[in-house]
Amino acid sequence: MQTPNSNGLHPFQAVNPATGALLEGTCFRATSADVDAAMHAAVTAFEAYRRAGKDEKARFLRTIAEEIESGGDAITERASAESGLPLTRLRNELVRTTTQLRLFAGLVEEGSWVQPVIHTGPPDIRKMLVPLGPVVVFGASNFPLAFSVAGGDTASALAAGCPVIVKAHPAHPGTGVLVAASIQSAIEKCGMPEGVFSILFDDGHAVGAALVKHPATKAVAFTGSLKGGLALQKLAAERAIPIPVFAEMGSINPVLLLPAALEKRAAEIATQLAGSITLGGGQFCTKPGLILALRSPSLQTFTTALAAAIRETASVPMLTAGIHQHYHQLSTATAAADGVTLLAEGASASGTVHFPTRARLAQVSARNFLSNPHLQEEVFGPFAMIVVAEDLQELRSAAAVLGGQLTVTIIAEPDELPAHEILIQQLADLAGRIVFNGVPTGVEVCAAMQHGGPFPASTDSRFTSVGQGAVARFVRPQAWQNWPDELLPDELKSANPLNIIRITDLTCARK
Amino acid sequence: MQTPNSNGLHPFQAVNPATGALLEGTCFRATSADVDAAMHAAVTAFEAYRRAGKDEKARFLRTIAEEIESGGDAITERASAESGLPLTRLRNELVRTTTQLRLFAGLVEEGSWVQPVIHTGPPDIRKMLVPLGPVVVFGASNFPLAFSVAGGDTASALAAGCPVIVKAHPAHPGTGVLVAASIQSAIEKCGMPEGVFSILFDDGHAVGAALVKHPATKAVAFTGSLKGGLALQKLAAERAIPIPVFAEMGSINPVLLLPAALEKRAAEIATQLAGSITLGGGQFCTKPGLILALRSPSLQTFTTALAAAIRETASVPMLTAGIHQHYHQLSTATAAADGVTLLAEGASASGTVHFPTRARLAQVSARNFLSNPHLQEEVFGPFAMIVVAEDLQELRSAAAVLGGQLTVTIIAEPDELPAHEILIQQLADLAGRIVFNGVPTGVEVCAAMQHGGPFPASTDSRFTSVGQGAVARFVRPQAWQNWPDELLPDELKSANPLNIIRITDLTCARK
Repeated sequence: MQTPNSNGLHPFQAVNPATGALLEGTCFRATSADVDAAMHAAVTAFEAYRRAGKDEKARFLRTIAEEIESGGDAITERASAESGLPLTRLRNELVRTTTQLRLFAGLVEEGSWVQPVIHTGPPDIRKMLVPLGPVVVFGASNFPLAFSVAGGDTASALAAGCPVIVKAHPAHPGTGVLVAASIQSAIEKCGMPEGVFSILFDDGHAVGAALVKHPATKAVAFTGSLKGGLALQKLAAERAIPIPVFAEMGSINPVLLLPAALEKRAAEIATQLAGSITLGGGQFCTKPGLILALRSPSLQTFTTALAAAIRETASVPMLTAGIHQHYHQLSTATAAADGVTLLAEGASASGTVHFPTRARLAQVSARNFLSNPHLQEEVFGPFAMIVVAEDLQELRSAAAVLGGQLTVTIIAEPDELPAHEILIQQLADLAGRIVFNGVPTGVEVCAAMQHGGPFPASTDSRFTSVGQGAVARFVRPQAWQNWPDELLPDELKSANPLNIIRITDLTCARK
Repeated sequence: MQTPNSNGLHPFQAVNPATGALLEGTCFRATSADVDAAMHAAVTAFEAYRRAGKDEKARFLRTIAEEIESGGDAITERASAESGLPLTRLRNELVRTTTQLRLFAGLVEEGSWVQPVIHTGPPDIRKMLVPLGPVVVFGASNFPLAFSVAGGDTASALAAGCPVIVKAHPAHPGTGVLVAASIQSAIEKCGMPEGVFSILFDDGHAVGAALVKHPATKAVAFTGSLKGGLALQKLAAERAIPIPVFAEMGSINPVLLLPAALEKRAAEIATQLAGSITLGGGQFCTKPGLILALRSPSLQTFTTALAAAIRETASVPMLTAGIHQHYHQLSTATAAADGVTLLAEGASASGTVHFPTRARLAQVSARNFLSNPHLQEEVFGPFAMIVVAEDLQELRSAAAVLGGQLTVTIIAEPDELPAHEILIQQLADLAGRIVFNGVPTGVEVCAAMQHGGPFPASTDSRFTSVGQGAVARFVRPQAWQNWPDELLPDELKSANPLNIIRITDLTCARK
């Protein structure tokens, strides 16, 4: 592991967002020499790592999980101090992180994920997925563990056979150091090549930009803001050889409330949504930020109940001063826009919360919503807005102006779905995942998950950043024609020595 | 079908490249109203077409194939007149075209290609591939049938469930009209929605640009030059909502000749390569344009034999005046570059060939090759250059400067491969397909084919434009969470009514 974080240049420290106190430990911005060294080490490591057997790669992933678990207490404590998130949440996130690592270990071990396809010809042509090479991963502010140093991006890239260079999130560098040490320990225990993993620090944008522009970088994974994702995408597109940037850039995750459901269980739905809006300080990319419904007495009941729940929401520290400030500005501006009413505001902060948030609920008519594109911007934090439509046509018009989304949620009685087929199809076309009578937060890590949606929810709707499918971002198909059997990758040899599922002349079988 | 080709604006006619004669029939440049009408029709058609059952879509694809076959004589005669390609070649290409359509029909009919993945949860999450929407296809100059109006791009987009708008290649508009009529006839016979297919004409770039920029366009498929592909890619990236452009932009398809193979069968290899270099006037994107070898007496034998074969190559008409001119200029400039020797030139044209080509073979030392990046540019046409290296290090250096390729070919005795492992890996990393002891031309249409390689061979190395895999370009995964079973797509219903192969809780099974 390359951790060139003690060069003395641009020192910075993490801040406890709950207290405002500077935390122990100093990080240093990586130099361009550090970037070069990490990338060079990754290129060298790739030659060995790509040749490692599937069981070796799986063992490596499992060992990372074990090492993180043995350092678990220190990691979650530091992550809590750096993020302001409760220890319980971080313990769950740690489990999610190690579960992800083991899930990818299982995928690699089983082996069929490389999708071998054999055409016996003549000509004999055999295709499978091969790793792209070094992958740059950006740590996310809102998941110090599961979407950061050893998070899903890193786990899936390592599973794919790609070395990883992490640009640590500046808000939780200490967590990054601890998790990176766990990975380093796994590298040593498993005899993996140095350079298969590196971590670099920066409290600005220069190091990230240098990594994306580096000729040895083959792909980039990012979870964060639209602005950040687009900036990386632009840098990648401007390279002499463009590379893919998989940026998950959040969304407003519309929720459609249909009349019969509202009539039947307005208060219950309000409680459920209030929990999802304010979960983790509203700092999830799948937080439901927009609620679409027809004007009705039951909507009023729902609104009253949701407003009451929002008012009762306690203030929690937000992840960083920047996020806190941005939330305050954007939620205030949105609530003050033409025709928007601020319906409710959460409890004000107690004296001990340094970057406090107040949950907010606003309301707007569909007509006013349609006239102001700014109302579609994501407000990262515990904010939601109810859009009240006078009729179905207004609902459809509101749906028609929405951009791509990670999720859409339909709250309905099953028998009222067919009558709203067009509207539901409109919403479904916007989203990677459509949820029925549930909440979009709580992104299950499984093979059926789709986390990523049409632009601008993510840069490429054809890929997911959660679940086993995430591995597909870091590979490409390669075909061998008439290649000598003994020199083919094991996955493609005629005898199928790995006993994986393959398609041979369009028949799918494990042989 | 929308064929707004008689508006009287910008009339143009096709030219017979063998004779220079203008061909019967006048085409008209589409207006922006035509573009809008075609896109609007596609959007409307999409709503119906995406809901068509798999058997209906398959029947539609098969009917297109039948209609093309019944118009086959007229189509191939016109295509021959417009392209200068021999009738025999076009009859084969027609078979390739109808075979492709039936291959995608088979894929759709079988149904598992949507890759259903079910997580029984809770939460219950089910994922499958869904169509993106209207796809714009650009006809290719060098395949008037198999990569044009009803070629692989159209077939795979229709199979995916996407309407297609073809921008016909200006060199063979009459072929386009005939093939479009076959598709229109299939639309009527199968009761498919009008607008599921449209064709537009233009002898310039305006219509293509308008189609790529149109808000309703969801993806673009293109086969052609690097310049053309990059221009479309740029337009697509600059849209408010960027869309993917799958551009296959050709390559120089390096061939590595290893010493033992040369020693054993220099003349045989020369004959094989000469055939591949000059096939179809060298106008294939997989034409081997660069031959890498170590200096040796057997290389001299090979070179002499290849030069002799090139000298014997008859002049044939090139596809268009522009391609003819470009070939002449670029092959002349390359052969005249510092250190490059023109070894052989094909027979000069007989009086009857209007845009004649002369095959050319050049040679350069690895040192000179390394010093001049222009020598890596694709010369579209029957041109190849031998790069002579003094030692293995020079060969590796030459391989290290090469860009992404559709193919690399290794000519070797099997027992000399292990000793050249690093060099072969270097070359393999550049390419979508690696060929052993064969030639790269002859792109088999099968599920194991990978046609597309790292940039600049194509814009996205993770996709293929040939074989069943081509369908993946026009779909995205979508997940349904806790959705009522009866309202799920059939592919995801618990009872598996389509009896397709699905992954349920990570176990792969039919039903």
